[in-house]
Amino acid sequence: MTSPSGEVLVARAYLSAVAEPPAPALWEFVSAHGPVAAAGLIVAGDVPPAVEDAVQARRDEVSGSELLESTRRTGLRLLTPEHEGDWPTERFACFEEATAIGLAEVAPPLALWAKGGRSLARSLDRSCAIVGARAASGYGEHVSAEWAHALASAGVTVVSGAAYGIDGAAHRGALAARDSDGSEGRGVTVAFVASGADVDYPAGHARLLTTIADRGLVVSEYPPGTVPRKHRFLVRNRLIAGAGTGTVVVEAGARSGAGNTASTADSLGRPVMAAPGPVTSASSVGCHAMIRSGKAVLVTKPDDVLELINPMGSAPPERSSPERVTDGVGSHARRVHETLWDGASVEELSVSTGLPPAKVRAVLPELEIGGLVRRDESGWSRVI
Amino acid sequence: MTSPSGEVLVARAYLSAVAEPPAPALWEFVSAHGPVAAAGLIVAGDVPPAVEDAVQARRDEVSGSELLESTRRTGLRLLTPEHEGDWPTERFACFEEATAIGLAEVAPPLALWAKGGRSLARSLDRSCAIVGARAASGYGEHVSAEWAHALASAGVTVVSGAAYGIDGAAHRGALAARDSDGSEGRGVTVAFVASGADVDYPAGHARLLTTIADRGLVVSEYPPGTVPRKHRFLVRNRLIAGAGTGTVVVEAGARSGAGNTASTADSLGRPVMAAPGPVTSASSVGCHAMIRSGKAVLVTKPDDVLELINPMGSAPPERSSPERVTDGVGSHARRVHETLWDGASVEELSVSTGLPPAKVRAVLPELEIGGLVRRDESGWSRVI
Repeated sequence: MTSPSGEVLVARAYLSAVAEPPAPALWEFVSAHGPVAAAGLIVAGDVPPAVEDAVQARRDEVSGSELLESTRRTGLRLLTPEHEGDWPTERFACFEEATAIGLAEVAPPLALWAKGGRSLARSLDRSCAIVGARAASGYGEHVSAEWAHALASAGVTVVSGAAYGIDGAAHRGALAARDSDGSEGRGVTVAFVASGADVDYPAGHARLLTTIADRGLVVSEYPPGTVPRKHRFLVRNRLIAGAGTGTVVVEAGARSGAGNTASTADSLGRPVMAAPGPVTSASSVGCHAMIRSGKAVLVTKPDDVLELINPMGSAPPERSSPERVTDGVGSHARRVHETLWDGASVEELSVSTGLPPAKVRAVLPELEIGGLVRRDESGWSRVI
Repeated sequence: MTSPSGEVLVARAYLSAVAEPPAPALWEFVSAHGPVAAAGLIVAGDVPPAVEDAVQARRDEVSGSELLESTRRTGLRLLTPEHEGDWPTERFACFEEATAIGLAEVAPPLALWAKGGRSLARSLDRSCAIVGARAASGYGEHVSAEWAHALASAGVTVVSGAAYGIDGAAHRGALAARDSDGSEGRGVTVAFVASGADVDYPAGHARLLTTIADRGLVVSEYPPGTVPRKHRFLVRNRLIAGAGTGTVVVEAGARSGAGNTASTADSLGRPVMAAPGPVTSASSVGCHAMIRSGKAVLVTKPDDVLELINPMGSAPPERSSPERVTDGVGSHARRVHETLWDGASVEELSVSTGLPPAKVRAVLPELEIGGLVRRDESGWSRVI
């Protein structure tokens, strides 16, 4: 991994904070001029109108070097596209592609703040987002934790949003996989949060966030100390959708943030999956609606998810149904087999099954060879 | 309603019993010659090989007049295609169409035995099949009964197979709609059974079958006294699939009769619907598989079903999501509204939201007119 110069870091910190994300015009401006020159032009007021709109309010309120100082003080790292091997260039290419076709609301982040020492790029190499309702049911939390555990055990990083309910259960399930395995690449989980990465939000997840940072990463595009606001959760959702190779919605109400994450994943070209639940549960209404509308694929187990996020993957082919003893035989033989009583004659079997005597005579040896029927002096009988 | 002659009834009773259903070759033979002539040719042995195969075993074992006598004795009615107004000619046309394109296993019935006085044709005028696992969960039985009640209350006849589990709950739910409404056309349910219509199978449903016959119909293509056999359940399933305008599977295991009914309904061109359930429940595995494979549409409530079986139906358009106070305003106004604190100034709001002061100034009057914010000497504040 290579680190960018201090000058680039100061510029990126400034650019990331000077406009409220997502900032597509600013992102294009930085792409065209590079971060250092772009920051200088903004401070000088020498920018096109769309950029001016985005930066005008905070141009003089934000200081890149002060932000770097608070980054150090809060124990965070600033991650930038210039951090080769650490920035998930390939995984985040979807943001640039979507922005290029006019989806301004999914503009790429200009920088990210991270709590935790892992490489973000390597963590997202194999990844899956699991999201859902804060007001989750016991069923939803169970499914979220179980699936996250299974994915994390298979070496897939579980991405979520650290909220109460489905998110928290997903992080916990993934972390538990590390406990039961012990190897480095297992049980990794990444939380993208809507506040500063140093802010414990929700407060009840302070310990969980610390554990996630210890073993994975807590990531935000908001500077240290930023408080969460409603629209920031929606803006943050695009990072979850983009960071996962696919997105699984475990439970979602009729109108939910998880539905927004799913829509975003869909517009980024990532597979969207949803777990069904009881039709009597309000927490599954959103999942069912996504499946009905074709926005999400119904998934019922971690193997379904692995298959969709990794089409060349190694999930074993599933048996469509359990076996029966008569599975190998034809329908006439099956009819004779199920009609058979002890000591039946061919003629009696013919009338009872409605099959001609010749057909009955033809299938009995097949059933006998298969060990399903036997013949003695009283007639034919079933063995199994 | 017109009744056929005694000669036709004797012939149809004989034809229906002389071959084990489904009997596509026999059905075509009867279509070509008429029932009376066809029965005569069979007794005389003057039939093509495919018909010979079907009738050879029981040609001399079956008597049409004896069957009519036992029909009277058991209190059943023999229903034939010649019973105009009583035979569901239009609803059953799907069998002829499917047979014509080579689906031999869905050949039309040659006659039906019915317990109960209603017209089968009129009962199936508006109809829906509800089927599912015998080993149903409490959840499945609840959903089956609730949906059947709602459909029956909407004047839709609930068709099922009188088995334990989902079937029984569907019949009971439909019957309850009559109790709570009282009008003739409500709460009608029709059971297609795999034994004679006079046989109480399963034995634990003897009372239920009596009630179904009192208020609806118990129907079978097997003569009075016929005992059920495994393959007869599958053969019977085509009648359920054909009798319903659509088929709803409420719960089904990995390998189930309900799955067979659903496949048959699909091949008959009827909409197939499935209710989701918890992924942790074995009873929903079959439903989820049907939805995943595209064989069934996910439905979560009776209105979904009514919409699919009756595309011109009267189900009210559903609100996709609950309302919010800021639903009518733009995203900038919404961002200002959610950021607002008591006594905020335009300049403070600009920095906090990242919006240019001009934009903040532009959206505040809109929010004020909407009653969402107010202004006093201290600055701007939220009202709701």
